[in-house]
Amino acid sequence: MTQTISINNSQHLQVSPLEIPSRLLLGPGPANAHPAVLQAMNTAPVGHLDPAFLALMDEIQSLLRYTWQTENELTIAVSGTGTAAMEATIANSVEPGDVVLVGVMGYFGNRLVDMAGRYGGDVRTITKPWGQVFSLDELRSALQTHRPAILALVHAETSTGARQPLEGVGELCREFGCLLLIDTVTSLGGVPLFLDEWGVDLAYSCSQKGLCCPPGASPFTMSSRAREKLQKRQGKVPNWYLDMNLLGKYWGSERVYHHTAPINLYYALRESLRLIGEEGIENCWQRHQQNAEYLWERLEDFGLTLHVEKEYRLPTLTTVRIPEGVDGKAVAKQLLLEHNVEVGGGLGELGGKVWRIGLMGFNSRKENVDRLLEVLEQVLPK
Amino acid sequence: MTQTISINNSQHLQVSPLEIPSRLLLGPGPANAHPAVLQAMNTAPVGHLDPAFLALMDEIQSLLRYTWQTENELTIAVSGTGTAAMEATIANSVEPGDVVLVGVMGYFGNRLVDMAGRYGGDVRTITKPWGQVFSLDELRSALQTHRPAILALVHAETSTGARQPLEGVGELCREFGCLLLIDTVTSLGGVPLFLDEWGVDLAYSCSQKGLCCPPGASPFTMSSRAREKLQKRQGKVPNWYLDMNLLGKYWGSERVYHHTAPINLYYALRESLRLIGEEGIENCWQRHQQNAEYLWERLEDFGLTLHVEKEYRLPTLTTVRIPEGVDGKAVAKQLLLEHNVEVGGGLGELGGKVWRIGLMGFNSRKENVDRLLEVLEQVLPK
Repeated sequence: MTQTISINNSQHLQVSPLEIPSRLLLGPGPANAHPAVLQAMNTAPVGHLDPAFLALMDEIQSLLRYTWQTENELTIAVSGTGTAAMEATIANSVEPGDVVLVGVMGYFGNRLVDMAGRYGGDVRTITKPWGQVFSLDELRSALQTHRPAILALVHAETSTGARQPLEGVGELCREFGCLLLIDTVTSLGGVPLFLDEWGVDLAYSCSQKGLCCPPGASPFTMSSRAREKLQKRQGKVPNWYLDMNLLGKYWGSERVYHHTAPINLYYALRESLRLIGEEGIENCWQRHQQNAEYLWERLEDFGLTLHVEKEYRLPTLTTVRIPEGVDGKAVAKQLLLEHNVEVGGGLGELGGKVWRIGLMGFNSRKENVDRLLEVLEQVLPK
Repeated sequence: MTQTISINNSQHLQVSPLEIPSRLLLGPGPANAHPAVLQAMNTAPVGHLDPAFLALMDEIQSLLRYTWQTENELTIAVSGTGTAAMEATIANSVEPGDVVLVGVMGYFGNRLVDMAGRYGGDVRTITKPWGQVFSLDELRSALQTHRPAILALVHAETSTGARQPLEGVGELCREFGCLLLIDTVTSLGGVPLFLDEWGVDLAYSCSQKGLCCPPGASPFTMSSRAREKLQKRQGKVPNWYLDMNLLGKYWGSERVYHHTAPINLYYALRESLRLIGEEGIENCWQRHQQNAEYLWERLEDFGLTLHVEKEYRLPTLTTVRIPEGVDGKAVAKQLLLEHNVEVGGGLGELGGKVWRIGLMGFNSRKENVDRLLEVLEQVLPK
C-alpha cells in the first residue's frame, strides 16, 4: 500500500467510552425501551439473507399485523425511523397530480402536507385548531369539495395529544373512491386500532413509543387497494429506498436482496412485538388507558389544566397547559437535568403553551406517574 | 374505552424469546460488530434533543470526518442503512435534467443509475466488465463526451471486490466543472480514503462493514461546492427524510427537530468511530491490507483463483472464482448451516461465478482467515 498523503488529525477527537445519563423518558418519544428488548437487540448480527433472519422477518410481519389488527400482506418494518415509514406511505401512493386531502390539526399533519407536495401531489387541506379533531360531517363535506385520490389523517397527533376518531371514515372514503392514509405513530400498541375494520389503506408508525423498542425500524402497511394503485402507476416510485415494489420482493417469498436491514433493530422489534402478543393487544390498550386516566387525575389534582377534551385525549400522550407566569422550557430543563425525567415542550401553535407528557409502551406504568408528580411538585412553583 | 370490535387473533403468533445462531460473517457485510460497540448500543435510549445526545452527535461528526479524511461541515450519519445514505447523495445533488455520468463496473453502479433516474437525472453510463476499473483517460474522455453535472463512481464495488483508484479524478471533475460523488460503502474504515485531497464532493457509506458496527446509521458527507448546488436548486429536495437543508439544521447549531434519530445505533456508531480513532485510521487500513494479503495467499495456496487483478483488489472484500464443477451456492449454504461461517455469492454478472469473502472491521483478523480455510478444506472437494 503506497500512501503518500499525510493523515489530517484535526478531527481526531480523543473521547472516552460512552457515558449516557439514565433518563425516565416521559416526553413525546422515544420512551424507555423494555429491558428484554434491549437485551434482544444486543444479540450479534447475522446476515440479512440468513435463514434465521428471514424467519424472524416473517414473525415480525405476523405480529405487526396482529398489533395493527390487519391482514394486509404487505405489512413490514421500514429501515428507518417513523418519518421514513410516513414517507413510504406517501411515496408509494401519491402520483403527480393526485389530489391529496390532508386533515391538519397539528404538526404532523403539516409534515404530511410538505411530503405529499414533494411527491407531486395536488395538496388540499382542512384544518382544526391544535388539540381538536374532525367530525365525520366535516370530513364528508371536505371529500365532496375536493374529491381526492387520498385522504390523509393523523390518528394520534403527537404535537397535540388528540385522537382523531376513525369509525366511519373508511366507509366515507369508499363512497368517494379514495384511499385512506393514517398516521399511527403515537397510537400503535397503546390506542385501539382496527385497521381492517376501519378500512384503512395505508398506515405507518414507529418503534420507540407504544412498542417499547428503540427507534430505527418502523411499521408500514398497505392494503390490496393501495397496492393496486401502486401497480398501475406510471413510472417508478420516485424513492428507491422506500419503493414497495422492490421491498415487497425482499419481504415476500422471492427474498430478492434490496438493502441491508438494520438487523439488530429487527431483533428488538421482534421481541417488543412478542411481548405485546404475550400481554395481549387489548390488555395493552387497557393498561395505557388506565395509567393515562390516573395521570390526568393526578395532574388535575395538582391544579394543572389538560389541553384536549377528555373524549379525544390520547392515552399515550397528554398535553398539559403551562400555567400563567411559568417558564415551561426552564421547568422541562430542570426536570431533565436535575431529576433525569424528560417531558416534551410544545411544537408549532402550541410552542410555549403546553408540556407533552408521554406514557407509552414500557413506560405506561403507575409508578412513572407517581415519579413524575413527585418531581413536578419539587420543580413547579405552586 | 368502548370497544365493540372483537380482536382478530389470526396473526397472533406464539413465539419464544429470540434465538439467533452465532455466525462468523465473512460475506459482503454485515460483518460481526465489535463487542464494545454492541455493549454501547445496549445503553438505554435518551431523547433525540437531550443535551447528552447532541454532544454525542458532535463527536460522531468529528470522528466521521477523521475517518473519511475530510473537513466537510455537513458530515453526518443518515438514519437508515447504506442505501439510504446513497439516496441522500443523489436526492440532494441531482436536479431534474442534470446530466449524471455513472461509472458502472458492478451491481452498485447500476443502483446509482436507477436512483439518479428516479430523481430526474439525464443518466449516462460508462461500463467496465465486472471486476475491472476505469482509467483516468477513460474518465477524461467520458467527461468530454457527456459534460455531466455529476460524475458518480463506486470506490469499492461490493459486488466485484474491485477498488476504483481516485487519484486525479477530482482534478478532472474541476476541469470539467462537475461534482464528484463516491460510493465508499465497502471502503470506509478499511481502505485508504482521502476525500478532501481527492476532491470528492459527495460520499456515503454504511456502518456494518469497515466500522465494526451493526447496520442502520450511515455516514454521509457533502462538500461546500455540493452545498452551493443544493442551495441554488429550484424547488424542494424531492425526499423529506433525506433533505439536507432540513437535516443540516438538526445536526448544525440550530438543533431544529427533524426526525427521531435511531438513538442506540448512534451510540454504537460513536463507539465504533472511537475505536478507529484509538487504533488510528492509518493502522486500521494497514491491518485490513495485511490480513487481506494473508487471505489471498492462503486461497491461492488452496488452489483457488482470485477474480480481481492484485493492484485493484479491495482489502475488505475478495472475489474468488468458483471452481469448475462446484456448486457455489451449495458450498456457501453448507459453510453457513454446518459451520456458522457466512460467505457471499455473486451478484448480477458474477452470479454463480464467484464467492465474496469479506474481512471487514472487527473481522479483519488473521484468526478468521485461518478459520475460513479450515472449514473450506472440509467443505470443498479438492
